[in-house]
Amino acid sequence: MSQPLRLGIAGLGTVGTGVVKIVRQKANLLSMRAGRPIEITAVSARSRSKDRGININHYAWEDDPVVLAQRDDVDVFVELMGGSDGPAKAATEAAIAAGKDVVTANKALLAHHGQALALSAEEAGRVIRFEAAVAGGIPVIKALTEGLAGNEITRVMGVMNGTCNYILTRMQSAGLPYDVVFEEANQLGYLEADPTLDVGGIDAGHKLSLLASIAFGTQVDFGAVELEGIERITIQDIHHAADLGFRIKLLGVCQMTGRGLEQRMSPCLVPAESPLGQLEGGTNMCVLEGDMVEQIVLRGPGAGEGPTASAVMGDVMDIARGFRVSTFGMPAAELSAAKPAQAVTPAPYYLRISLDDKPGALAKVAKALGEAGVSIDRMRQVRHDEATAPVLIVTHKTTRAALEEALAHMAGLDVIAETPVALRIEKV
Amino acid sequence: MSQPLRLGIAGLGTVGTGVVKIVRQKANLLSMRAGRPIEITAVSARSRSKDRGININHYAWEDDPVVLAQRDDVDVFVELMGGSDGPAKAATEAAIAAGKDVVTANKALLAHHGQALALSAEEAGRVIRFEAAVAGGIPVIKALTEGLAGNEITRVMGVMNGTCNYILTRMQSAGLPYDVVFEEANQLGYLEADPTLDVGGIDAGHKLSLLASIAFGTQVDFGAVELEGIERITIQDIHHAADLGFRIKLLGVCQMTGRGLEQRMSPCLVPAESPLGQLEGGTNMCVLEGDMVEQIVLRGPGAGEGPTASAVMGDVMDIARGFRVSTFGMPAAELSAAKPAQAVTPAPYYLRISLDDKPGALAKVAKALGEAGVSIDRMRQVRHDEATAPVLIVTHKTTRAALEEALAHMAGLDVIAETPVALRIEKV
Repeated sequence: MSQPLRLGIAGLGTVGTGVVKIVRQKANLLSMRAGRPIEITAVSARSRSKDRGININHYAWEDDPVVLAQRDDVDVFVELMGGSDGPAKAATEAAIAAGKDVVTANKALLAHHGQALALSAEEAGRVIRFEAAVAGGIPVIKALTEGLAGNEITRVMGVMNGTCNYILTRMQSAGLPYDVVFEEANQLGYLEADPTLDVGGIDAGHKLSLLASIAFGTQVDFGAVELEGIERITIQDIHHAADLGFRIKLLGVCQMTGRGLEQRMSPCLVPAESPLGQLEGGTNMCVLEGDMVEQIVLRGPGAGEGPTASAVMGDVMDIARGFRVSTFGMPAAELSAAKPAQAVTPAPYYLRISLDDKPGALAKVAKALGEAGVSIDRMRQVRHDEATAPVLIVTHKTTRAALEEALAHMAGLDVIAETPVALRIEKV
Repeated sequence: MSQPLRLGIAGLGTVGTGVVKIVRQKANLLSMRAGRPIEITAVSARSRSKDRGININHYAWEDDPVVLAQRDDVDVFVELMGGSDGPAKAATEAAIAAGKDVVTANKALLAHHGQALALSAEEAGRVIRFEAAVAGGIPVIKALTEGLAGNEITRVMGVMNGTCNYILTRMQSAGLPYDVVFEEANQLGYLEADPTLDVGGIDAGHKLSLLASIAFGTQVDFGAVELEGIERITIQDIHHAADLGFRIKLLGVCQMTGRGLEQRMSPCLVPAESPLGQLEGGTNMCVLEGDMVEQIVLRGPGAGEGPTASAVMGDVMDIARGFRVSTFGMPAAELSAAKPAQAVTPAPYYLRISLDDKPGALAKVAKALGEAGVSIDRMRQVRHDEATAPVLIVTHKTTRAALEEALAHMAGLDVIAETPVALRIEKV
């Protein structure tokens, strides 16, 4: 039997605890599959004495994750602390400098510092793996980097924040407004300490920026992700979208276009009967499109102890088996700095416009759209009792510039009761 | 730049042609990703002169795939001929003996000879990879072997024959009987030369036996796969199942139970709203369940030039990157010979019983079920004009032994117009 692979784990929250359990409980299975034992030699966390349901006295303890990362008896530094800077960054850098491989679940760290970390890892001849950072238990990094390595990737899409999908699907199924379901999710412990990370699309945007880098061979550029959260999605829009045959999802889309790299994380309408449309609750889904493979859809739990620890262990097992691949699928020095697209790919849009209920109002709206070159696929005036009449419009495919021109025209009309809602309809 | 990885390709049908196109058209991308060039040095096929839309004059030609497999300028033997024996087997064995790695799309070869081939490959220090053999473009072998390597796998399910799924979903959507749709599929070229391979479940059964080996660390045992095809599925049953909220799928299921290893490929009912239930046309789906990851669902094209060539190239790229994993995820000598389960896991069943339309008939059927210990969840008598009345029954969970006892009781009744239809309802 070969030398054991020795892990140093920093961070013993839910995921770290799950990893410890797997390594302890499945020692024989892991060893058989990897061809060598997997061992934990040292751990580090905020509190040594906290009851986690596991016995950590088998392992050396370090107060400082940086010291843990540098230990001679650690081959792989497993970073499960989180945070884009601070100890996670310091310890990851220390691990690489000390010649360790790194496995991390930290999407924020890589979204902000992925290029620099990948460069230094490659200079040191080490690997950084981060399957657990994107879409929880779904092996999407592996599918994209390795399984589809023979493809030119054309588009990657994903619902990658389970909390947002829980909120949106719960609003629909229970007929409850955003604020009420947000508070429910909060009570259930589904939200990050800073909920904007979830509902503002930031967490999902981090993940998208990592997938984009692998898909298109570009340097991670989280700053170029167009971010829009779900805070302004109303129960009305969810119901209207459903009536029109759609679901509203916080959807990440990245694609390389003639205008540059598009990275968008925003609420979109998708067909109700599509796999994305049918995704309920906290489940995640990634859609990978390549010129050869056409479309692969991956679905699974986006969070939780078991699924996330499963992803971490997939990376650990690859390292144990001797598999070494560049962090983002090709050498970091070869990743290009992609130009962000200045205009997004044309698409149809869903519009909800509250009109004053007086003659000629609809005609003015139709004129504003027509003059901007936006043509109407379907229009529906919803039955109402109030003084304003909700009008729903599905446009034909249009540029966003034309749409914005139309919305600007509308803003000047005297028949619009409130700012129109405009949501992109993504072809999936 | 490192040494090129040199491929020898045997078989230039749809898939082989696709592989040649990828290697030629994406040379830079592949080289960047793999860290070394991928080259084709030699090819072999039944006809040298056939027009395939590619120029094969760049490559050395061999009439005999065995000779191709042994060439000094070949590092990886890419076997795309098909067939469980004959040239494919001879050439694969020759390649291993000559110290080549093997990439194959040949499910029949591995279902019948996987254990022996894996043993000799490992003795020779070579790898056999077969992503393209199962579920076309879906990287399911990779997900199961690598991504979920930290899991004890509990169950694997799949719809892995696109032709069968096409037939079943087309029957439903067009309201056409089996024979008519079978002939349609034949005209469209969807069927194997021997259609029993498709509609008899053999091809999908081959695939299931490979997944079972990886999932449970057992020697491939295709002979133990319980096979039932779709030939006897009627449009009536498809419609009745739909009315009850189900779809009929040719579903592969393998799971390790206290009674041994279950491997079944048979028509089953699954909930209409589940991912499996919603799978239309020729698309494939694999469901992987593990103790940590819960459930991962993978969906994608199950056949075709692009998707299958994509899977072949994923394997080639892994070899180029230096990744070496045992054929079935652990050393072949360590794979156990699993005892086939003598009884399948209890499940609810769908029954369609044609009763003579006379008083007391239904009571006799209910009594036969009750006496065998099969309890009824739902029963529905369908409106009818004929002398026989179709009765639909959904049972509670029952053993198959009890069900068969009930069916045997029924066979002795004087009110049963034709042999009852019994289909398992799989929990998905």
